[in-house]
Amino acid sequence: MLNCEYNNYYSAGNCRSCYEKASKTEKELKGKIEELTRVNDELKREINELKSIVNFLSFWDPIDSPPHNDHLSTDGYFTDVVLVVVDMDSGKPVANTVHVPANKALLASRSPVFKAMLETEMEESLSDTIKLSDVSHGALHAFVDFLYTAEATLDDDMACDLLVLANKYEVNHLKSYCETFLISKLNWESSLKNYSFAHQHNAETLLDAALSLILDNMDNLNESEEYLELVEKDTRLVVNIYEAYYSNT
Amino acid sequence: MLNCEYNNYYSAGNCRSCYEKASKTEKELKGKIEELTRVNDELKREINELKSIVNFLSFWDPIDSPPHNDHLSTDGYFTDVVLVVVDMDSGKPVANTVHVPANKALLASRSPVFKAMLETEMEESLSDTIKLSDVSHGALHAFVDFLYTAEATLDDDMACDLLVLANKYEVNHLKSYCETFLISKLNWESSLKNYSFAHQHNAETLLDAALSLILDNMDNLNESEEYLELVEKDTRLVVNIYEAYYSNT
Repeated sequence: MLNCEYNNYYSAGNCRSCYEKASKTEKELKGKIEELTRVNDELKREINELKSIVNFLSFWDPIDSPPHNDHLSTDGYFTDVVLVVVDMDSGKPVANTVHVPANKALLASRSPVFKAMLETEMEESLSDTIKLSDVSHGALHAFVDFLYTAEATLDDDMACDLLVLANKYEVNHLKSYCETFLISKLNWESSLKNYSFAHQHNAETLLDAALSLILDNMDNLNESEEYLELVEKDTRLVVNIYEAYYSNT
Repeated sequence: MLNCEYNNYYSAGNCRSCYEKASKTEKELKGKIEELTRVNDELKREINELKSIVNFLSFWDPIDSPPHNDHLSTDGYFTDVVLVVVDMDSGKPVANTVHVPANKALLASRSPVFKAMLETEMEESLSDTIKLSDVSHGALHAFVDFLYTAEATLDDDMACDLLVLANKYEVNHLKSYCETFLISKLNWESSLKNYSFAHQHNAETLLDAALSLILDNMDNLNESEEYLELVEKDTRLVVNIYEAYYSNT
């Protein structure tokens, strides 16, 4: 009887048993690799299919299409409504306002809030104009773009602006899209600001991510300026943090 | 020196070298499995993301929504055009015709043919009615459904009907969708019929698949009824088969 390295010295196996054991393991592992490769290929096929569905379902976008006019005449795009930025107090269009053309059917399909506005006899449906306040032209363009194409180019500010609009007009897919971006940028320095922002605009996922980062850094909490601001501005939110901390410990 | 099973009898390895070799292989294979599993998880995440994009981009469908009227009033769906089946010769609506409501913007976005119809001053754009002939009500409903949702329930007949419409109105995604279905059902008995059908409606992928099946069964070719029919009906297509056969041999 030989002691055998493959059997870890202490076994009574001989060279043949080593060999058999090693081959069996190797065979099993190779089988698993084959199976995983097959699944991978299937998943890739599914992704390609989904991409072509997305491509098919994506609307061309009346905003991107020249001629870019200040009124409804985006010929060939059958737009039947315009979005316009107004002053919150006066309700009048802001200076240098741009009218963003769109389709009622599309807006209503993407946002239950637009749907309600447009299908009832409200000002919006009668005038074929939807007024928005507290939004930059850039954000309004990006917002309508996203409704047509499910795509947006984000930076921190744009992600926040679009999240606010997504929450207001109940476009859940856009809200998740912005939250995912903001979470990817989250760090200790930005966590309190994001926590407060997420709370204000009902962004649960961002709220949880920011809170979890805050709880991991409780020692630094009351040294930060944002903390002092938050105590002033929204004491209840600070209490929420401490409650979460003590229920975790 | 020991001969060792793991080294296939003939090597001069000893038990330690067996063990080391086996461990190295095992480690490499396990690493590969880990990597593949990681890729799998990423692909699954991507699929989930794409599915939520598809869900977001998918339109609600004015056809499916009650009340189902014979005219444009599908309130809340902002339809602005109807599709109607007409008799090819008289151009008049067929008996018991159903008016299928839709949105010009959506039709134009999905089909360059509809777009051209609707944006020029043709009968369709003036009357807000698009007339189709040579199509069943069921197929027309399924066609418009697909334009809204990228989904259709297919059987052999429906796949053929929709492929014809997809080719006529240049809806490429629907054409591939039907071709994939028809190819999955393809067998030797149906190959000549599909070959001829695919040729008639410019379905390249189905044509290639059917031809390849025919070429694999050349011995049975001229015994089949479909072959005799094809010789009568479309001799040029039969020549194509023989040309492909001889260029392959």
